[in-house]
Amino acid sequence: MPDPTVISIDAMGGDFGPPVIVAGLASEASDWRAKNLRFLLHGDEAAIARELGRHSEARTLAEVRHTAQVIASDEKPAQAVRRGKGSSMWNAVEAIREGSAHAAVSAGNSGALMAISKLILRMAADLERPAFVAPWPSPHGITTVLDVGANIDCDAERLVEFAIMGVAFHRAVRGVATPSVGLLNVGEEELKGHEEVREAHRLLREGHFVEDYRGFVEGDDIYSGAVDVIVTDGFTGNVALKTAEGTADFIRGALRASLGESLLGRIGGFLAQNAFRRMSGRVEPDRGVPLLGLNGIVVKAHGGADASQFASAVRVAAALAQSDYAAEIGRNLKHLTEAIAGQATAQPAERG
Amino acid sequence: MPDPTVISIDAMGGDFGPPVIVAGLASEASDWRAKNLRFLLHGDEAAIARELGRHSEARTLAEVRHTAQVIASDEKPAQAVRRGKGSSMWNAVEAIREGSAHAAVSAGNSGALMAISKLILRMAADLERPAFVAPWPSPHGITTVLDVGANIDCDAERLVEFAIMGVAFHRAVRGVATPSVGLLNVGEEELKGHEEVREAHRLLREGHFVEDYRGFVEGDDIYSGAVDVIVTDGFTGNVALKTAEGTADFIRGALRASLGESLLGRIGGFLAQNAFRRMSGRVEPDRGVPLLGLNGIVVKAHGGADASQFASAVRVAAALAQSDYAAEIGRNLKHLTEAIAGQATAQPAERG
Repeated sequence: MPDPTVISIDAMGGDFGPPVIVAGLASEASDWRAKNLRFLLHGDEAAIARELGRHSEARTLAEVRHTAQVIASDEKPAQAVRRGKGSSMWNAVEAIREGSAHAAVSAGNSGALMAISKLILRMAADLERPAFVAPWPSPHGITTVLDVGANIDCDAERLVEFAIMGVAFHRAVRGVATPSVGLLNVGEEELKGHEEVREAHRLLREGHFVEDYRGFVEGDDIYSGAVDVIVTDGFTGNVALKTAEGTADFIRGALRASLGESLLGRIGGFLAQNAFRRMSGRVEPDRGVPLLGLNGIVVKAHGGADASQFASAVRVAAALAQSDYAAEIGRNLKHLTEAIAGQATAQPAERG
Repeated sequence: MPDPTVISIDAMGGDFGPPVIVAGLASEASDWRAKNLRFLLHGDEAAIARELGRHSEARTLAEVRHTAQVIASDEKPAQAVRRGKGSSMWNAVEAIREGSAHAAVSAGNSGALMAISKLILRMAADLERPAFVAPWPSPHGITTVLDVGANIDCDAERLVEFAIMGVAFHRAVRGVATPSVGLLNVGEEELKGHEEVREAHRLLREGHFVEDYRGFVEGDDIYSGAVDVIVTDGFTGNVALKTAEGTADFIRGALRASLGESLLGRIGGFLAQNAFRRMSGRVEPDRGVPLLGLNGIVVKAHGGADASQFASAVRVAAALAQSDYAAEIGRNLKHLTEAIAGQATAQPAERG
């Protein structure tokens, strides 16, 4: 039997800490065992042991590494980097660098996780900071959208890096053999859009950094499932994500208000309540997202994740760790760097 | 009695032409009469006269200017500019320049309307092309979002121009005495966001070009009604608008699918159908939007507008024409130009 895949867990992160995190690990113990996973839990030994006592299924899969230090949810990233050494989050990421884990999962403070991961693991790509992926539901499955908030100003090369990382992520986690890629723009004419977007379009079309590049897509394609991976800069992606969240909240509110206004509406709404619940399940994407572009796999679970949402973040980390994901990104980023260097040296030669 | 306000109408524009447009004008004839409005209808005299025969209420308010030429809905803007002279759209806008109308309304080809309006009326502000406003519904009323698609690259000065124009529009059309303004960004920290957005923030905070500037807002504030006017560049605004449309379509589809899956869901959905219709009314914003930044008032009605939606676009044009809108924008743009020129001359002086 091959060595197990070890997932390092920040057991103190998120709104609920060990009770929810250990319950999440226990909830799919037989699946983890089938996948040959083991967990390294960082945090308060007594609190974790108490939860492992309640969930015996998880006990044989888990090893605990005690630390009393925790990073607060409102701690500033710079402060977390300065004072976070030895905390459960820090140690969870550090375990990857030491070689004792293949991936890390934390539901803690996003900014701190990003800063600590970047410091410990360093960036593989030419990015300011790790890119965030949003898994976006569509009628055909889940679309991968990146970056949704970390890298504000993106030149063409960074947008191509997002395409490379998004494809590797989508293939590993969604199991699509050849994910299709679109570049977010306004209108389909080649003349439209920012200079960087047009240049990234040219690179993707001519450089074959991803196998199935489909050209420009627009905002309404994010939810339509027109392509598997949608690439954009962190500013636009963040606005799109928050606009979609705001739209969904607004429509839910409008639906509630409209149903409440009449007796028939109230009766209809009562009868259809299970259908509404199914609808929410369709609309809410899963909440475990990797920090892309690091030398190592770090997955952020939603701070308010419940046990099953935390388990879904662990599943994302395991899928990435047990696939060709890291090697694929490495190969394709190298290809990109060489292509760009080739251009840079070709140009002076042409001039001379 | 003062001279009437004349609204110039492209009677051939949109998917339905004279039957819907004349019906729209007739539907609120008593209101138009109270507002002392008159209409100049450009297009096929026989077709328009036939509709005016059916709607006698509109007849005394309308004067017809015949032309047989029409701009097709798929005509390219450049073509429309070259070959559109004498068309119903062209003549509707030209009437403003000649001084025979105070505003124009067209449901025709957007790109052509933008190009023709720009050519005939010229830009008042320092924009490439007119800015588009999106009227966005919120629980507290309607938020004005601009630019949603015309000006892709925007420096700080253009963003401030949008703020000035958005406030004047919101005050004239929504009747809010002192509209509040937010600048779309990612996160509320002053260090985040593009350089242009941070610079526009500084100008708005220090320059008093709008009375009630509230700082940065995020994507989810568009639908929450946190401020009256949200300012962003045309790229981000267009992505946000299309993402919101895509989200709404997706949720409607998910709701339909979820209700259809069970008998109770189907019964509940049937009973609540009026409530769903009320919800759609809450979610759909009105569809008459001005092209901002021109020397003159041009309002674009939605191509598929029905009679009451066309009437709502006419109401927007009338509100702008009968308010201080144009003069307010003129004053505040002048203030901006002087402030920027002042900076430009002040800086060398400080250095010397």
